[in-house]
Amino acid sequence: MTALVTFGETMLRLSPPHGERLETTRELEARAGGAESNVAVGAARLGVDAAWFSKLPDSPLGRRIVSELRSHGVRTGVSWADPETTRLGTYYLEHGGEPRGTSVIYDRADAAITTVTPAELPTGVFETAERFHTTGITPALSESTAETTRALLRAAGEAGMSRSFDLNYRSKLWSPEAAREAYEELFGEIDLLFAPYRDARTVLDREGKAIEVAHGLAAEFDFETVVVTRGEKGAIALREGEVHRQPVFEAETVDAIGTGDAFVAGFLAKRLRGGDVADALEWAAATAALKRTVGGDLAVVTPEEVEAVVDGGGGIDR
Amino acid sequence: MTALVTFGETMLRLSPPHGERLETTRELEARAGGAESNVAVGAARLGVDAAWFSKLPDSPLGRRIVSELRSHGVRTGVSWADPETTRLGTYYLEHGGEPRGTSVIYDRADAAITTVTPAELPTGVFETAERFHTTGITPALSESTAETTRALLRAAGEAGMSRSFDLNYRSKLWSPEAAREAYEELFGEIDLLFAPYRDARTVLDREGKAIEVAHGLAAEFDFETVVVTRGEKGAIALREGEVHRQPVFEAETVDAIGTGDAFVAGFLAKRLRGGDVADALEWAAATAALKRTVGGDLAVVTPEEVEAVVDGGGGIDR
Amino acid sequence: MTALVTFGETMLRLSPPHGERLETTRELEARAGGAESNVAVGAARLGVDAAWFSKLPDSPLGRRIVSELRSHGVRTGVSWADPETTRLGTYYLEHGGEPRGTSVIYDRADAAITTVTPAELPTGVFETAERFHTTGITPALSESTAETTRALLRAAGEAGMSRSFDLNYRSKLWSPEAAREAYEELFGEIDLLFAPYRDARTVLDREGKAIEVAHGLAAEFDFETVVVTRGEKGAIALREGEVHRQPVFEAETVDAIGTGDAFVAGFLAKRLRGGDVADALEWAAATAALKRTVGGDLAVVTPEEVEAVVDGGGGIDR
Amino acid sequence: MTALVTFGETMLRLSPPHGERLETTRELEARAGGAESNVAVGAARLGVDAAWFSKLPDSPLGRRIVSELRSHGVRTGVSWADPETTRLGTYYLEHGGEPRGTSVIYDRADAAITTVTPAELPTGVFETAERFHTTGITPALSESTAETTRALLRAAGEAGMSRSFDLNYRSKLWSPEAAREAYEELFGEIDLLFAPYRDARTVLDREGKAIEVAHGLAAEFDFETVVVTRGEKGAIALREGEVHRQPVFEAETVDAIGTGDAFVAGFLAKRLRGGDVADALEWAAATAALKRTVGGDLAVVTPEEVEAVVDGGGGIDR
Amino acid sequence: MTALVTFGETMLRLSPPHGERLETTRELEARAGGAESNVAVGAARLGVDAAWFSKLPDSPLGRRIVSELRSHGVRTGVSWADPETTRLGTYYLEHGGEPRGTSVIYDRADAAITTVTPAELPTGVFETAERFHTTGITPALSESTAETTRALLRAAGEAGMSRSFDLNYRSKLWSPEAAREAYEELFGEIDLLFAPYRDARTVLDREGKAIEVAHGLAAEFDFETVVVTRGEKGAIALREGEVHRQPVFEAETVDAIGTGDAFVAGFLAKRLRGGDVADALEWAAATAALKRTVGGDLAVVTPEEVEAVVDGGGGIDR
Amino acid sequence: MTALVTFGETMLRLSPPHGERLETTRELEARAGGAESNVAVGAARLGVDAAWFSKLPDSPLGRRIVSELRSHGVRTGVSWADPETTRLGTYYLEHGGEPRGTSVIYDRADAAITTVTPAELPTGVFETAERFHTTGITPALSESTAETTRALLRAAGEAGMSRSFDLNYRSKLWSPEAAREAYEELFGEIDLLFAPYRDARTVLDREGKAIEVAHGLAAEFDFETVVVTRGEKGAIALREGEVHRQPVFEAETVDAIGTGDAFVAGFLAKRLRGGDVADALEWAAATAALKRTVGGDLAVVTPEEVEAVVDGGGGIDR
Repeated sequence: MTALVTFGETMLRLSPPHGERLETTRELEARAGGAESNVAVGAARLGVDAAWFSKLPDSPLGRRIVSELRSHGVRTGVSWADPETTRLGTYYLEHGGEPRGTSVIYDRADAAITTVTPAELPTGVFETAERFHTTGITPALSESTAETTRALLRAAGEAGMSRSFDLNYRSKLWSPEAAREAYEELFGEIDLLFAPYRDARTVLDREGKAIEVAHGLAAEFDFETVVVTRGEKGAIALREGEVHRQPVFEAETVDAIGTGDAFVAGFLAKRLRGGDVADALEWAAATAALKRTVGGDLAVVTPEEVEAVVDGGGGIDR
Repeated sequence: MTALVTFGETMLRLSPPHGERLETTRELEARAGGAESNVAVGAARLGVDAAWFSKLPDSPLGRRIVSELRSHGVRTGVSWADPETTRLGTYYLEHGGEPRGTSVIYDRADAAITTVTPAELPTGVFETAERFHTTGITPALSESTAETTRALLRAAGEAGMSRSFDLNYRSKLWSPEAAREAYEELFGEIDLLFAPYRDARTVLDREGKAIEVAHGLAAEFDFETVVVTRGEKGAIALREGEVHRQPVFEAETVDAIGTGDAFVAGFLAKRLRGGDVADALEWAAATAALKRTVGGDLAVVTPEEVEAVVDGGGGIDR
Repeated sequence: MTALVTFGETMLRLSPPHGERLETTRELEARAGGAESNVAVGAARLGVDAAWFSKLPDSPLGRRIVSELRSHGVRTGVSWADPETTRLGTYYLEHGGEPRGTSVIYDRADAAITTVTPAELPTGVFETAERFHTTGITPALSESTAETTRALLRAAGEAGMSRSFDLNYRSKLWSPEAAREAYEELFGEIDLLFAPYRDARTVLDREGKAIEVAHGLAAEFDFETVVVTRGEKGAIALREGEVHRQPVFEAETVDAIGTGDAFVAGFLAKRLRGGDVADALEWAAATAALKRTVGGDLAVVTPEEVEAVVDGGGGIDR
Repeated sequence: MTALVTFGETMLRLSPPHGERLETTRELEARAGGAESNVAVGAARLGVDAAWFSKLPDSPLGRRIVSELRSHGVRTGVSWADPETTRLGTYYLEHGGEPRGTSVIYDRADAAITTVTPAELPTGVFETAERFHTTGITPALSESTAETTRALLRAAGEAGMSRSFDLNYRSKLWSPEAAREAYEELFGEIDLLFAPYRDARTVLDREGKAIEVAHGLAAEFDFETVVVTRGEKGAIALREGEVHRQPVFEAETVDAIGTGDAFVAGFLAKRLRGGDVADALEWAAATAALKRTVGGDLAVVTPEEVEAVVDGGGGIDR
Repeated sequence: MTALVTFGETMLRLSPPHGERLETTRELEARAGGAESNVAVGAARLGVDAAWFSKLPDSPLGRRIVSELRSHGVRTGVSWADPETTRLGTYYLEHGGEPRGTSVIYDRADAAITTVTPAELPTGVFETAERFHTTGITPALSESTAETTRALLRAAGEAGMSRSFDLNYRSKLWSPEAAREAYEELFGEIDLLFAPYRDARTVLDREGKAIEVAHGLAAEFDFETVVVTRGEKGAIALREGEVHRQPVFEAETVDAIGTGDAFVAGFLAKRLRGGDVADALEWAAATAALKRTVGGDLAVVTPEEVEAVVDGGGGIDR
Repeated sequence: MTALVTFGETMLRLSPPHGERLETTRELEARAGGAESNVAVGAARLGVDAAWFSKLPDSPLGRRIVSELRSHGVRTGVSWADPETTRLGTYYLEHGGEPRGTSVIYDRADAAITTVTPAELPTGVFETAERFHTTGITPALSESTAETTRALLRAAGEAGMSRSFDLNYRSKLWSPEAAREAYEELFGEIDLLFAPYRDARTVLDREGKAIEVAHGLAAEFDFETVVVTRGEKGAIALREGEVHRQPVFEAETVDAIGTGDAFVAGFLAKRLRGGDVADALEWAAATAALKRTVGGDLAVVTPEEVEAVVDGGGGIDR
């Protein structure tokens, strides 16, 4: 029985080796990457029966995405599109140390998912699933994805699922104003909001500290739970008036991409495994820290590793 | 002074290692590939001052294409497009032995070049250049590229340049009927036609042997020279009623992609260096054979190597 | 609903790059390989809902095996063993051209599977599955695997499943005499036998041509179907007195390991998809030929590719 | 004339690339690694004529170990075992940044060395050698290796060699109690003890500071010299009542595995080259620091580099 | 119209992978590296029409150098030498963390450039170029290069070009005394001096702080501008009595080689683009910082990236 | 006790990956290669106690050569030269299929060995060694190497060793006339001559068939044994008037470089192991065939593999 269902775009992520630039590289590493499937993979690896819904071209490239997600135990509900007329979204990622910084080039226009409709997806699974998750990237992709996002959130609600949403504002996809309008239209269908503090300020025009932002959002949109993340400064969660604070676990970063998704995966996994919000925040922070030590978008971790980080510890056992 | 000007799309070519499949690979080799720039590179390497016109996104990916072409000595006349609203065409290439065969996935829709107009290109160079070359791929890409192809051929003609055209029919881009119509509209502006025998039959509805095809095309469209290529069976050239035959030079094939373009490069380079048609056919066949021994689309060869193949010879000199 | 269930050992396969020797290499390619999981992967890729039963250490190495199989859509029914007291079988594979030849070093003693018992495996799935497959490698591994093989074959028979068995004699695991005794003890529970001609002669002491071997085995052990494979000389199948012959499809071999398993996968997949024995032989031969063009043990192919080989055809479509 | 003889197991060390996990990697780096051969290699590179005794399968894998050690100038005295019935110990090493940490999976059970006997080893060399070294790993491998360790220590003593021993407690091989018993049985044959502070506390139940531990051990077991290492906190040596302290040299760590062995190698090499204990401690610390900058178990360093670290200095000379 | 002309040796730079040593590596990364071409590449990438003069063997190795420089847009004016009697200079670079440090082995004796004469170089371009740059490495290579350096500086001066010179003292090429004599002979032809503080002290025997060194040199040799660089402590420029100070921008260093050349490239590019000395120092420092994040000798950067560093900023935009 | 002593230059061999060209590659594979050390390695691997004498720069590059040879069990007698004033010879090798062919660029001028003198080498070992081998490359390198070659041959003769010599004519090092003169000066000191048929004709001006060449040379220079190799046409040996013929064993060639040296190694090893000339020819041909299947100059083979080729056989045993 699937516990967590996610919906969103997964792209082929192409990145040059360490210290090499996109402009000069002869070699690209290919991996699957997408906010919602990153969450599904993280959750599946942490012991949750997780699924991911999407639309892909019926080609080796589309199958590649499914293969990689499936290898981590994620169930996939994919609408397969004609590969002659659709494409797989890709993104080019160049890691760079300071002051150069990491940069991203999206090449995701007209990806297969931009034509998805709710009818194409196997939502029958909603009858028995517990949670649904998507992010603010998905409604930004096209009218169709926006509509499908709304329809799935509604259907999940009708099926009694808890629905979570990560703002994940992408300035390359839309303006803050367009994003805000779309977000607010969806907020009525959302039980648990993950809000990066910066997005809350830039897009939702919130002011004040993280805790004020959380209280304001919870009050205005009636979220059951609000989690505000502040990068290196940790995260807070507000649920039923109670505030939980969680510092970050320090990490040697190999690849920062996917850290936020790992955080969400850790949170949702722990909740689905019966943990309370404070436990879930700990797992979230630990999963995020572990993710940073691994190349790729995905949180290739185990529950034992997450527990070990939560418990402190470490050292080579041999 | 530029001797040869080419015009067309160059893509990022992404291919997995030998024996690996696109669906499972973690690594992609990245190279520049495009019929017309393949010709320009081959010609430049063979001693001709060659240029390539195109339109690219002003991004690391677009600059990557220019860098690779420039490294072989090609001059580039590029119209740089907004990288937020255009993209670089890509193609995925999977080499496979028989019976699997090599396969290609194009991801070239909406590439920057599809919006090119003649006014964007530095055609002033036509005043002093000798030859212009493009292929049947370019007019297939968009209305704009079709119009620009026509305009450039006309302008080249007005400037007194010799204009060559390689049919290069691509079934993934258009139907034989659409291609035929477009080709025939251009034929009045073409002096030298390169016609793969298969394309001549499938698209131009020609019947009979290669020599009959050449005579028929020359007669109907008044080409100065017609070169018909028949893969392993060699090529023939018809010019001023005279027929020249050229067998292939045997080659151990590492990468067959770009062989036809290497043939054209060898032919044009030898003509520009003062060779007659028979000499040019020899260079064409030798360049094509050498190309097959090298990975990538490009004919990374030297005039000395081409001469050595023409002269027979071989063996390690040490 | 699972259509095909397989049972056997899957190892970590470690191999040096092309032209490099185990003794000097600094780099090893790591892949999953095992006769029965090779069959399951091939069948799953050809559209069959396939499962694989086994026992693995509960470690990153054990999970690695499951990940790779799952990425191709295989369901896994694994008994997880204590990683401190068991190990993952490995095998070192060195590809070598003639006259050196390819060589294999097994390091599979005391692998987790050698302690497996029927009770550890999720045989409930037998109620609704159609076919069960294992090979002559499995009973050679240990007393426990031999007993479990017998028990599973019996259980599969009781559940009404069709049971197939590939002799797959391994001289590094046991003597021909020991193998023969074990095989013959199992033959009463087998409906479909895959017999490499060489194994039939060496181990089962059969004489005469492939067809005679098939008739003899079918008569003596009452198999419903016998398929005798003769490497480059093709295969024959005998079913209900009718003989079907199938030549091989020529292939450019990148990696010959797993060819026999790909043959079985193609045969079983086509049978499960409703094909008759002649169709199944064609698919078997085509899947085997395609497998040879791909690195690794696994038949990373698609039904469309198999059909294309059966239909002839080929050439790069672009 | 061999100056230093070591005895112990050397394994094939398999590790994924930086940032990659064992569970998902397709590529493993293969190197030789083992505490005693690490010491022999380090010492040989620092100008000492060093030998290593062991038992290996007579296979490409066994020869691989010998090749790598020999490439650094180590003499090898190997008892070659039947490759069909023995195996080469392996270990999987996954480097990970904090909080993930580096992890090790041993696959060394039933390695060829576990059946070694003193008679198989070329101990004639003891007549003229100066020092013998082994570690607490070797007696933990099997009854045979424990007996052989005892026998070699005795023989070395009878030949007048100075005998050193590094506790090197491995919790994956035995309990602290079993280790303690075995250690104490050997201590009577040991002149120079290397004791990691943590092992001294955990296994030998020592309390107090490093200096107290050293005094206590020296007093109880009558060691000529005791060296206690405390990781980042440096090391102390006690000899003839005199205490020498050595801080660590800071290092940018690429690979921490083998640091302790490099320390021992530096110490023994300097002693064999005529240095006093204080000099030897400096060389030990410098060799250990240099080792950390190099991938693999081995201290691929030169005497000049060790001297340069001892002297301070640095910067690119060009 | 070429704005900047440089002259000097470019070598093939061969370096092992991260953490590997030259003595044990099986793989070397090959790149072009040379102080003056590093400057030309950096300047070309920053929008300046830049050229590089040199002499190379007419071989694949010589052409490799030209290809790599040309790929970044540098014009090359090369005298091609007989490959049978000359060679390409090479240098082996081993990156190492502390305390090992990075080391360099030059293998540049008798490189083709050591026989260069002014007559071989296309100095006609001086008529319209603005700036000429070379370094203290070039006159150290041979009598011929020393003479050619003098001749080119004179010719550049006669053509009205501004001439810059970077001391770049190389202790492996000559003694401080020989260098000083050669430098001082050239100083009369130099308008802009780049003086690493250490070189100024060691070779030019200057004392005092950077500012005093600058004043002293400017006074004694009548330089228009003196730039003294002090590594991590930043740089100062003195021009027309005015002093400009520039701190370094912090950088995560992947490869420090070429940092000084990137500094010069940034400075010259900004000056040629119309910036004043203070602007040029900012660009110099920013280009140097960015260079450190990229592998290889070359400053693979863009004007936009340099501006972004100058303006602060950062973070992944997506 | 060393059985075989060789003398000659070993270079660093640098080669791009398969299908890549020197002009464009970013990666070079580094290996040791030199005719005489190739022979020593092959012989050592085939069970002979073999040594190699040479002179190398005392640098990581020089040590790299020794390390690689030593890893195969070769004893090295090296005169270490000042790395500031000498260099390591290198050669660039580009493998290419037909019609491109494999090409070699030597960069060996002024290598350390060019200054070697007999006094620098540990010829004391000659007292007890059985055979001495060198090739026609060594006297071509410099006056010093020519003199040292003569001196060593004389010393070996005086010590009663059998002396072999492989013509190995290198047109890039000297003219046929110069080579002939040098060869003939040495022939009086040679017992066993290996003469590639082509070299015998080109350099020694021999006419007629291989057998006539052998008879002529034996008669004129009083060689005990003459072996003439004819590439694909096999080899013949003449000894005491008796002629032995040996066809080649067919091989799938990965790397043809070193085939001739492998032939010599197999011949000498078998002779030293007590085989007669016919046996030695078989081993020579088998070792040469196996060598072709392995990358690099070296015959990384075993006596068992050579025997297996001699005996026919093959197939994967598993």
